Amino acid sequence: MSMDLGVTKKVQPLIDAVRKMIDEDIVPANEEYHAEIGNNPEHDRFKLNDRQLEILDGLKAEAKKRGLWNFWLTDSDRGYGLTTVEYAYLAEEMGKCPLAAEVFNCSAPDTGNMEVLERYGTDEHKEKWLTRLLDGEIRSAYVMTEPNVSSSDPTQLSFEAKKDGDEWVLNGEKWWISGAGDPRCAVYIVMACTDPEAHRHSRHSMFVMDADTPGVEIIRPMQVFGNDDAPHGHMHMRFKDVRIPADALILGEGRGFEVAQGRLGPGRIHHCMRAIGQAERALEMMCKRGLTREAFGKKIATLGANYDIIANCRMEIEMARLLCLKAAHMMDTVGVREAQPWISQIKVVAPLMSTKVVDEAMQMHGGEGISQDQPLAGMYTSLRTLRFADGPDAVHRRQVARAELRKYTNEKI
Amino acid sequence: MSMDLGVTKKVQPLIDAVRKMIDEDIVPANEEYHAEIGNNPEHDRFKLNDRQLEILDGLKAEAKKRGLWNFWLTDSDRGYGLTTVEYAYLAEEMGKCPLAAEVFNCSAPDTGNMEVLERYGTDEHKEKWLTRLLDGEIRSAYVMTEPNVSSSDPTQLSFEAKKDGDEWVLNGEKWWISGAGDPRCAVYIVMACTDPEAHRHSRHSMFVMDADTPGVEIIRPMQVFGNDDAPHGHMHMRFKDVRIPADALILGEGRGFEVAQGRLGPGRIHHCMRAIGQAERALEMMCKRGLTREAFGKKIATLGANYDIIANCRMEIEMARLLCLKAAHMMDTVGVREAQPWISQIKVVAPLMSTKVVDEAMQMHGGEGISQDQPLAGMYTSLRTLRFADGPDAVHRRQVARAELRKYTNEKI
Amino acid sequence: MSMDLGVTKKVQPLIDAVRKMIDEDIVPANEEYHAEIGNNPEHDRFKLNDRQLEILDGLKAEAKKRGLWNFWLTDSDRGYGLTTVEYAYLAEEMGKCPLAAEVFNCSAPDTGNMEVLERYGTDEHKEKWLTRLLDGEIRSAYVMTEPNVSSSDPTQLSFEAKKDGDEWVLNGEKWWISGAGDPRCAVYIVMACTDPEAHRHSRHSMFVMDADTPGVEIIRPMQVFGNDDAPHGHMHMRFKDVRIPADALILGEGRGFEVAQGRLGPGRIHHCMRAIGQAERALEMMCKRGLTREAFGKKIATLGANYDIIANCRMEIEMARLLCLKAAHMMDTVGVREAQPWISQIKVVAPLMSTKVVDEAMQMHGGEGISQDQPLAGMYTSLRTLRFADGPDAVHRRQVARAELRKYTNEKI
Amino acid sequence: MSMDLGVTKKVQPLIDAVRKMIDEDIVPANEEYHAEIGNNPEHDRFKLNDRQLEILDGLKAEAKKRGLWNFWLTDSDRGYGLTTVEYAYLAEEMGKCPLAAEVFNCSAPDTGNMEVLERYGTDEHKEKWLTRLLDGEIRSAYVMTEPNVSSSDPTQLSFEAKKDGDEWVLNGEKWWISGAGDPRCAVYIVMACTDPEAHRHSRHSMFVMDADTPGVEIIRPMQVFGNDDAPHGHMHMRFKDVRIPADALILGEGRGFEVAQGRLGPGRIHHCMRAIGQAERALEMMCKRGLTREAFGKKIATLGANYDIIANCRMEIEMARLLCLKAAHMMDTVGVREAQPWISQIKVVAPLMSTKVVDEAMQMHGGEGISQDQPLAGMYTSLRTLRFADGPDAVHRRQVARAELRKYTNEKI
Repeated sequence: MSMDLGVTKKVQPLIDAVRKMIDEDIVPANEEYHAEIGNNPEHDRFKLNDRQLEILDGLKAEAKKRGLWNFWLTDSDRGYGLTTVEYAYLAEEMGKCPLAAEVFNCSAPDTGNMEVLERYGTDEHKEKWLTRLLDGEIRSAYVMTEPNVSSSDPTQLSFEAKKDGDEWVLNGEKWWISGAGDPRCAVYIVMACTDPEAHRHSRHSMFVMDADTPGVEIIRPMQVFGNDDAPHGHMHMRFKDVRIPADALILGEGRGFEVAQGRLGPGRIHHCMRAIGQAERALEMMCKRGLTREAFGKKIATLGANYDIIANCRMEIEMARLLCLKAAHMMDTVGVREAQPWISQIKVVAPLMSTKVVDEAMQMHGGEGISQDQPLAGMYTSLRTLRFADGPDAVHRRQVARAELRKYTNEKI
Repeated sequence: MSMDLGVTKKVQPLIDAVRKMIDEDIVPANEEYHAEIGNNPEHDRFKLNDRQLEILDGLKAEAKKRGLWNFWLTDSDRGYGLTTVEYAYLAEEMGKCPLAAEVFNCSAPDTGNMEVLERYGTDEHKEKWLTRLLDGEIRSAYVMTEPNVSSSDPTQLSFEAKKDGDEWVLNGEKWWISGAGDPRCAVYIVMACTDPEAHRHSRHSMFVMDADTPGVEIIRPMQVFGNDDAPHGHMHMRFKDVRIPADALILGEGRGFEVAQGRLGPGRIHHCMRAIGQAERALEMMCKRGLTREAFGKKIATLGANYDIIANCRMEIEMARLLCLKAAHMMDTVGVREAQPWISQIKVVAPLMSTKVVDEAMQMHGGEGISQDQPLAGMYTSLRTLRFADGPDAVHRRQVARAELRKYTNEKI
Repeated sequence: MSMDLGVTKKVQPLIDAVRKMIDEDIVPANEEYHAEIGNNPEHDRFKLNDRQLEILDGLKAEAKKRGLWNFWLTDSDRGYGLTTVEYAYLAEEMGKCPLAAEVFNCSAPDTGNMEVLERYGTDEHKEKWLTRLLDGEIRSAYVMTEPNVSSSDPTQLSFEAKKDGDEWVLNGEKWWISGAGDPRCAVYIVMACTDPEAHRHSRHSMFVMDADTPGVEIIRPMQVFGNDDAPHGHMHMRFKDVRIPADALILGEGRGFEVAQGRLGPGRIHHCMRAIGQAERALEMMCKRGLTREAFGKKIATLGANYDIIANCRMEIEMARLLCLKAAHMMDTVGVREAQPWISQIKVVAPLMSTKVVDEAMQMHGGEGISQDQPLAGMYTSLRTLRFADGPDAVHRRQVARAELRKYTNEKI
Repeated sequence: MSMDLGVTKKVQPLIDAVRKMIDEDIVPANEEYHAEIGNNPEHDRFKLNDRQLEILDGLKAEAKKRGLWNFWLTDSDRGYGLTTVEYAYLAEEMGKCPLAAEVFNCSAPDTGNMEVLERYGTDEHKEKWLTRLLDGEIRSAYVMTEPNVSSSDPTQLSFEAKKDGDEWVLNGEKWWISGAGDPRCAVYIVMACTDPEAHRHSRHSMFVMDADTPGVEIIRPMQVFGNDDAPHGHMHMRFKDVRIPADALILGEGRGFEVAQGRLGPGRIHHCMRAIGQAERALEMMCKRGLTREAFGKKIATLGANYDIIANCRMEIEMARLLCLKAAHMMDTVGVREAQPWISQIKVVAPLMSTKVVDEAMQMHGGEGISQDQPLAGMYTSLRTLRFADGPDAVHRRQVARAELRKYTNEKI
């Protein structure tokens, strides 16, 4: 069976255009954008000030004008009709600059949420939210993770949705809700337990709702290694008697995990390819540092184990990228469900590999490597969170192992 | 040759007393102290406010009252006369809470600086600064690292000191100067290049000076993974025509490295034992989490590879501690110079081991592990910096290897 | 650029046919063949007895009859015209049984030697040796490695060839000459130093010669972890005034390294893909063992870290295979020279990965895993030698690092 | 609590004497001894020929004469009364040469078996076997491991002993019975299942018996990576209606595991310290090789990552030795049972560390490293078996983890 993991003629010009716009426009703007954080009248790091909005809107308008928009919509006539493999190469480029994915309307959690609405939403859902999300007018949040529940076993999630007449009433806490602090975040996709007595995988349902529904409270931003990641952020939220209409339900009662699975496949690959983009960037920094800084009268790249370190980073990036492309190829050809073991593989490999490469790059930079003068520490902390996001490593290794063992047994594993 | 690495009868009661005071007094105060950061009229995170000073002064007075003070003074009649091995056990305890070392007047960089003054300082130096440091009235900074110089080869340091009549004139930049932001920091030990034409190891000299000498400017706090570590902090400083008297010179012109070496031996062991204390704390947290959190109907400690992870952490902590104690024992018996290979060994091992243990503990905690709700991320970032502090891993491995090879050759290695 | 790493329609039936013949014919014969070692009148483990020849000849005749022959000849009209990628999949299959590669006339060192003769040999060379090698009538050896010379720097090789009238006179020792003990080995490709004063890479020349030339002495078989690998073996040889004709020279004086490089590219990929085949076999054994053996009332596959171990093996095999296929693809598209960094990468990765997987499989089998009752120990030792063969890991990492650094500098690295 | 891990005045002269005798007498004899293997009239590699016996007996007589005998008898007035810590240093020395431990009557499995007889044997047992074992006249075997049973869970062992009148009747197979092939092996300690219906840890009993009892058949030597380890060897045995007297029972019915545990503690430490001795020898070889062999005009020790490799080996040896000494110290002070977690720790650490060091030493030696010209491959294979012997790594990690978790819970773990 053919397995073309290369850059196609179709995607090559898009890669070039994305790379050019990142280098020339987004990287410089990115710095100013982040320097502006907190510079608004209320001193609120999560409020975007006028200059930030101007930067973002300008870049997004330009991207749209150039036709660099919504690449991730692989299966829809609203997008380019790229394959997941093709998109993966674009995701790698976008990984190299924090602001890039949003500029091209390809950022998490919006892409996953749009995918949910596109695939499982009603016409009303689509009309109300999908169009504006696709246009980049609003942003969204995916409200799933809860405090006090082991993220390795989401069947334990206890945030509750109870039917009350024509409405659902939501109660409970959620945290690590990325993007929920952004003032432009207008819609939530929410996982809630609708029947705690049901079978493990039928207890939960998925809902879509307005972000400004009464009863929703943002308690605080969660910190990642002490950073609040403003203005995007990861919020700790409380829902108190939040009432949403009956048709907020997506796909059907008890089908929350089905929606979640469909959502997670592509998103994991996007995350992983962006991680690989960051690893490439770190390796480039490592090499350049190694060639310009000297010790004992020699370039440090040539000292000690540094050749081995650089070579190992190159080999591990190559392998992780190929594995990620294969997972994307599987998604394109056999579908999310069958591609699951490969998606789990790359979900383990890419974050581990990229944190390791960034860690080596930090070490090659000396103390400067962990300071604000280099982007490496920020890359490290954001990559480190990927080892929890969408399931910790251990859960994915378990999936891979069980798929492997099932080749040799019909018994339940 | 006897090599007693155990807890002696002399130090056991001190360990007990230190542990008791940390648990009962310092841990609770630590939280309040850090919550107060930035709560002063000028909104300056590096200014201590009244409540912070009250907390600190209260704890220090209590420690002094209980006779838990200046343990690190191993060879002096001003201290307990503990061996380095004995002190190492105390350092491990103090590593378990950020504020602890300072409360017992055992914190870096003061201990190293006091050691310099005690060992190499003139009577005037001692009178002016050592007594107050020993009393915990003032704090100090060690001003060595420079931007743009590879930390693996300090002979390249170019911050300059020029003789001008009866004075030395200092010019240049320094960074990662820990504690220089603390308003109580009154004295600097400064490494400067006094003769760039001299032999590699004779170019530099060490000076001691008042922190408020005109011409010294604190540019900014360096950030560690985005954190400023206020109020202690790591400062980027500029010296512009800073004039200090001739007798600020320590030990003699061109003997800067000699002073630095004498200073670094014990300090590295203190750092390492505190790192081991943090690793112990992380392992304890990992076990408790594994016993209280469940997934798939089982305690997570019993799932997957977690037994192996816990066991590996235990084994690596045990081994690192023993190696550290052996290095301390070598210092006690054969002196800093001969103990150098062991000190280099532990300088590599302890930070690597402890970052790894903390990383596993974070993973066992799920997303919470990297958040502000647990101390793990803060432990991680502070331990990660140890892989640069006092020389990066590569330099210490090089030292260990050369010592090993010299057993078999008389040629220069 | 397209990068199809999949199984093509062209090669799929060949894979099926090879797999079928290995499973049905070669695996059973392999056991008998190896049990016969040493069962000849002279008790010489390197002499093939009648039964061994019968087995081998029978299998080879059958393979030839089925058209399963000389797949490796990628660029020639004498072969299938497979791409290196296509061949790689066949090499993986052949790696799963020790005898397989030879049965299909695809075994080292013959393939590399045939490649040398095909590419650089004169018509006489081809007529005399290539045809018979392609027919599987004779075998060959590649006589390069020398005792007392670091294999990381082959420019030091000192085995000498001196012109004497119309002849070259060879003197010196060689070792690890694989296959030279096989009685059917009729031809040697020999690297010799022809001008020790020339530039590092022009000192050596390559020769082709009859194996039964007077003066060639086989001293002993080298042992690999105590095994002589009979009847193939790795010989220690001495050449004493061995005279060969002037036209034994290949390509030209001083061009030995050029020939060696051309020879090594494809060979390394073959080795690596066979290694991956062995890793796949080991993983299969590990899973089956884990499903059938119990401890504490549970299948051992489900105990402790075994899920993680199985998952890691699967992921590392996947990644190594993809990297190997990419290296093959580069060879197919940009040529051996440009593909060099990828070939070096896979030369490091595949042996390390496969020894690790086999080691885990041994551990999962308990003591039996290292015994004669399982093939794992034999697989381990043969894979371990690959970390020396054709250059040790360190040399290949160096190549990879230098290629990486050259992207950012024009200076010599 | 004091923890003296150093070399005491008592053991220092013994270390010196052992080292001297190994260097001057045993190392040279060792080579001749092993070269003689198989040189006996029947071509049986497991029969000792006259020259072998002469070598062995000569060395043993000399050792006895010098008072270098039975050091391991830590608690008895028949030995030196060394502590386990003191003995550990001697074991390390003896690990450096294969024949050494036997020469000083300190080799496995005899020491463990003597310990069993000394501690649990009746006066008759002692008289019949212990005295001759202590004198080095006979050797012994420990008959525990069985085919088809996962070594991680010995409660599954099914080799059976049935009471029949005044006798026990033994039936079943055992394998990996080290030393049972040695013609001087006169006594077996045998673990057998006496009550399959009893509680997991009460099913088995321990017996002592003459090796030449009718019905015992040695089927074949097990091979370790293809080597039979003659003449010591590891035998696969079959017992068919083997009748032994009632008083062959040790300690009592159902107390087999109790005996096994008492036996295994010290033995594991001996194994581990010998492994550390081998690692030291490998590191020495690695350094010497690195200093004498050149590539690219430099000593290979100074190239690439070799400094790091040497340093890592040194650090890991140091740490493993200290951990082993601590385990020995715990045995000396709190007893085998309480020392169990430390013994499990060192049982995991020492074999892994020493195989790794030897593997690096092989790599530094190039192909020669795995050949018969260097002892490294033999060291590797014998160390690799330690990861199975007396329980695989996974079982020991499990023990360590459970001990750790029990600090924080009273529930069953």
